[in-house]
Amino acid sequence: MKRQEYKIIFEPTGRQVFVLPGTILLEAAAQAGLIIQTPCGGAGRCGKCRLKVISGACPPSANCRTALSEPDLAQGYRLACHAKIQGNLVVEVPATSLFESQQQILVQATGEPMELSPAISKRFVELELPSQADSRSDVERLRTVIPPLVFNPVGIRMLRLLPGIFRRQGFRGTAVIVDGELVDVEPGNTTSLCYGVAVDIGTTTLVGTLVNLKTGLDMGVEAKINPQTSYGDDVISRIRKCREEANGLAQLQRMIIGAVNDIVDALVRAAGIDRVHIYEIVMAGNTTMQQIVCGIDPSALGELPFVPVFTDAPDLESSDLGLDINPCGKVYVFPQIGGFVGGDTVAGIVASHLDRGTETVLFVDIGTNGEIVLAHKGQMMATSVAAGPAFEGARISCGMRATNGAIEKVVMDGDLRMNVIGNTRPAGLCGSGLVDTVAELLRTGLLDPTGRLRTPDEIPSDAPPALRKRLIEKDGHVDFMLAGKTETGSGKSLLLTQRDVRELQLASAAIRAGISILLEMAGLQPMDLSRILLAGGFGNFIRRNHARRIGLLPPIPCERIRFIGNASSMGAKRALLSVAEKQSASVIARSVRHVDLSLSPEFQTEFSAAMLFPEDDPGKDCEG
Amino acid sequence: MKRQEYKIIFEPTGRQVFVLPGTILLEAAAQAGLIIQTPCGGAGRCGKCRLKVISGACPPSANCRTALSEPDLAQGYRLACHAKIQGNLVVEVPATSLFESQQQILVQATGEPMELSPAISKRFVELELPSQADSRSDVERLRTVIPPLVFNPVGIRMLRLLPGIFRRQGFRGTAVIVDGELVDVEPGNTTSLCYGVAVDIGTTTLVGTLVNLKTGLDMGVEAKINPQTSYGDDVISRIRKCREEANGLAQLQRMIIGAVNDIVDALVRAAGIDRVHIYEIVMAGNTTMQQIVCGIDPSALGELPFVPVFTDAPDLESSDLGLDINPCGKVYVFPQIGGFVGGDTVAGIVASHLDRGTETVLFVDIGTNGEIVLAHKGQMMATSVAAGPAFEGARISCGMRATNGAIEKVVMDGDLRMNVIGNTRPAGLCGSGLVDTVAELLRTGLLDPTGRLRTPDEIPSDAPPALRKRLIEKDGHVDFMLAGKTETGSGKSLLLTQRDVRELQLASAAIRAGISILLEMAGLQPMDLSRILLAGGFGNFIRRNHARRIGLLPPIPCERIRFIGNASSMGAKRALLSVAEKQSASVIARSVRHVDLSLSPEFQTEFSAAMLFPEDDPGKDCEG
Repeated sequence: MKRQEYKIIFEPTGRQVFVLPGTILLEAAAQAGLIIQTPCGGAGRCGKCRLKVISGACPPSANCRTALSEPDLAQGYRLACHAKIQGNLVVEVPATSLFESQQQILVQATGEPMELSPAISKRFVELELPSQADSRSDVERLRTVIPPLVFNPVGIRMLRLLPGIFRRQGFRGTAVIVDGELVDVEPGNTTSLCYGVAVDIGTTTLVGTLVNLKTGLDMGVEAKINPQTSYGDDVISRIRKCREEANGLAQLQRMIIGAVNDIVDALVRAAGIDRVHIYEIVMAGNTTMQQIVCGIDPSALGELPFVPVFTDAPDLESSDLGLDINPCGKVYVFPQIGGFVGGDTVAGIVASHLDRGTETVLFVDIGTNGEIVLAHKGQMMATSVAAGPAFEGARISCGMRATNGAIEKVVMDGDLRMNVIGNTRPAGLCGSGLVDTVAELLRTGLLDPTGRLRTPDEIPSDAPPALRKRLIEKDGHVDFMLAGKTETGSGKSLLLTQRDVRELQLASAAIRAGISILLEMAGLQPMDLSRILLAGGFGNFIRRNHARRIGLLPPIPCERIRFIGNASSMGAKRALLSVAEKQSASVIARSVRHVDLSLSPEFQTEFSAAMLFPEDDPGKDCEG
Repeated sequence: MKRQEYKIIFEPTGRQVFVLPGTILLEAAAQAGLIIQTPCGGAGRCGKCRLKVISGACPPSANCRTALSEPDLAQGYRLACHAKIQGNLVVEVPATSLFESQQQILVQATGEPMELSPAISKRFVELELPSQADSRSDVERLRTVIPPLVFNPVGIRMLRLLPGIFRRQGFRGTAVIVDGELVDVEPGNTTSLCYGVAVDIGTTTLVGTLVNLKTGLDMGVEAKINPQTSYGDDVISRIRKCREEANGLAQLQRMIIGAVNDIVDALVRAAGIDRVHIYEIVMAGNTTMQQIVCGIDPSALGELPFVPVFTDAPDLESSDLGLDINPCGKVYVFPQIGGFVGGDTVAGIVASHLDRGTETVLFVDIGTNGEIVLAHKGQMMATSVAAGPAFEGARISCGMRATNGAIEKVVMDGDLRMNVIGNTRPAGLCGSGLVDTVAELLRTGLLDPTGRLRTPDEIPSDAPPALRKRLIEKDGHVDFMLAGKTETGSGKSLLLTQRDVRELQLASAAIRAGISILLEMAGLQPMDLSRILLAGGFGNFIRRNHARRIGLLPPIPCERIRFIGNASSMGAKRALLSVAEKQSASVIARSVRHVDLSLSPEFQTEFSAAMLFPEDDPGKDCEG
């Protein structure tokens, strides 16, 4: 029973396989995950599959001698489709010999170079017509130009369509292959029309990005409030609806799928493409959002011990969810870690490469749920805290998303100066503007460390009079006027209320308490952190010094804090562009240790402590 | 990038894999396709996963020392879940350590011992309830007792059902795993209720066998006329209906699915089981039948160059076809070879092990299409001929299937003696009776070699008078009376007409011509054949000497002719009982050379020659 096997190493990737004597190089390469192109169907005629044997003996076959030149043969080139393996080899694979969809295209799309290898590939084919000399089956005929290694099963739907398609189109068209399955042969050459959508499914905000899967480039972004917010701001309210109402889950799922379809609609219209050429949607959200979007009951997340239904990424088609893209399109929902720590966290880790470094790094994703991941000594632990939607502009009296009209930056020197998105009149306050305002109020002494807005009488005597005038006493508490009626032009002034400050305190304290506990568990001090990665779906960035000023982040130098934007969206986009990133996501979801703060007696203590703003900016030496 | 790998050989199967240092034995075994049981979830407590290291060093871990006795350790036993690989090893896998569904159970079900490893496995589980200390997801919880190697993806349908099932059933029940996918968790322990149905989809006859997948034993057989025969006897008439009528395919598919459901109905009723416990149907038929049953247009099989749509076995669920078994049941349709040579031939090769031997063997499957396979020097070639349904009792004036009342054996000595199935009065003639009658008429000289029934005046003078009396002249031709009105009791006599003889001549000549051409192509004489395997769905067997007497088979000694029964049904049953047999089927379908006789100018010549019966029994020396 024992059989001799040879080791074949493929460069430049270094992938290696063991094969039986006599195996052809083409098969060995496929075993190593390298799909070599064979336009002539492996007949040994076209020479496109040539590989270079760097080390080891591999005598050229008759076909090699016919199809390759003497100098090429001398250099070690062989036809992968004919060269039989007779011993251990090291083989170099020229990029030009790889099947089109595997050619490494480096794109900057997601911030850093990556291999473009989406789950979807398209290939224009013109097949020989059947003849008495070649009466192979329709599927086999297609395999002459697309090897079985690229697509394997042909589903029953496609088997039923294929004979009609081939004979209508004269055995020509564009084969669409999704995750190794043939799903269509479109008329004509549509290879350039290949798109996907990455969606960050937030509790409060949905962000969709249209991506060209051939180039890796973004083609548009659309954001939208999660319509489920009409049933409550946080995941608990959504879970309760699923638990208590017979149709609650179906209703919430319909809402969110409708909103994703609206986003797709807007993206398709703005980009001027056909939705039928969108072949994949990747979605990342917390466990509750992901289960609802899939139509999976999240009830068990609503009570101790907070159990999700799945952790591995489920395998879905667009029709399973009613998503309005190509009817055979695929849906990828990120794997989950546990409790409330879901796919958005995994996507954030994918985007930030937290799993690859060796430094001690803290990742904080600020949303309605705050997700915190600590990477230390090659291990990761993650937790989730209920922050509420304040950072997304919700539950704040004049809060809004970071769109046109939002005050996104506030500076107080003499009087209040502000940046308004779109350079229009101010219409409200977005997350970064809120943090700025509170930080500046603390700095100028208008707000005390307990979070109480001081009365004009209580503030420091050196406070600028223009700011003093903005403090408005009413019913025993104080509000702060951001913009008067004349400035807004809407007939209404914009106020930061005492209640708004409390909302921010709660949100900030929850996240800070989570951070403190993870640091404690790892036995670390804030200064042990090489880096803090601050993620969030804000339109603009939170000022680092202000995040520290309000106590959201622990006192470490600003240069160690990096804002990385919507990491969940970025991770989703990476998964869309490369199956390798999906594999990373699976490994990440399995390896991150989930910390359930409902079990931690320290959380309430830390939370209470964090409710107090720091007396002074703990790191005001550096600029944000 | 180069990494050291170790070779691990698993006995007694001899399977080997290469793994990285530090890999645990459990994973290495899984890589070799051996699923080791781990009731404690791989915690190193239960000791059930123990394997014996026969050669190579594998120091016991702390867990090994705790869970295993000193003598066991000394003998080389290690815990697969904890023993880390540090070098090349040979490891013996005790059957008791294998996951239940992999334990080799040798059954005689299909004529010879085989490993029982159906695509379906069931496992009763009682999971720990979720707690604060263990808040893993529902799917992960199930994986503590069923490793990911046994089931991997959990489809969206199941993800939606699982949380409800688990909480209703208190995290207990029987997990049903089909082809590596979890499809149900049934209440209670239903592990013993696990059935499948193997169906031979003939152009004329359907035969279904109910099989117990736990024991490998047959539980019943039901046969039924293919209701499509109302649209014509042969595949060409069915193809024509699909080509010419908009709803032709749908109508024919509905008919055959209805008939298979009727067979399932009858099997379920006779065996007293619930159809929900039938988890797989395996079907084998010719290319036309298989495509129609799948709802795949066979039109291209109706014109040159006779192109089927698929060759690889399609992946189907019962709901894809409307088959009335478990709603998540699987359907396996055999891979096809080409032209009209379809899954029934592949199934026949699987059943007869034609692919494994080194002898020169001819396989002849007699049905409405006759399929002929020649195995010679490790190569196989196959062809299909249109024989018509005479051998199945159709298109013969008094023909019938081999059921109660059928004359299945005829001997002529002095007068005519017959065996009637069920020992009742004769009601008609089945295939073997037809061949007997014609062979005996030839022997006694009542039939001349051209196939003409002689008049009483023309027959040899020594012919028994009782036989002579049975020759009835009418309208210028002669019929032969098998049974008079008084014998049948139906008021009608049974006649073998001149036209019936012609039908048998056509059927027999087509098959014989096919045999002759394959032999010619291989440069063989009949006597070069070590064996002829005669397959067919007859209820009883054709007498070998008579098959040779009428020229159906070439002149070789009877002892080399073996009747193997319904090989297509047997092969279907083997595929039902073992996934390895399905893999064999794939290899067979790809490796058999398809011979298209429509291309062979010799076919008409051979066919004409074979229309003449041999002058004398070419091998009468031996008994049938």
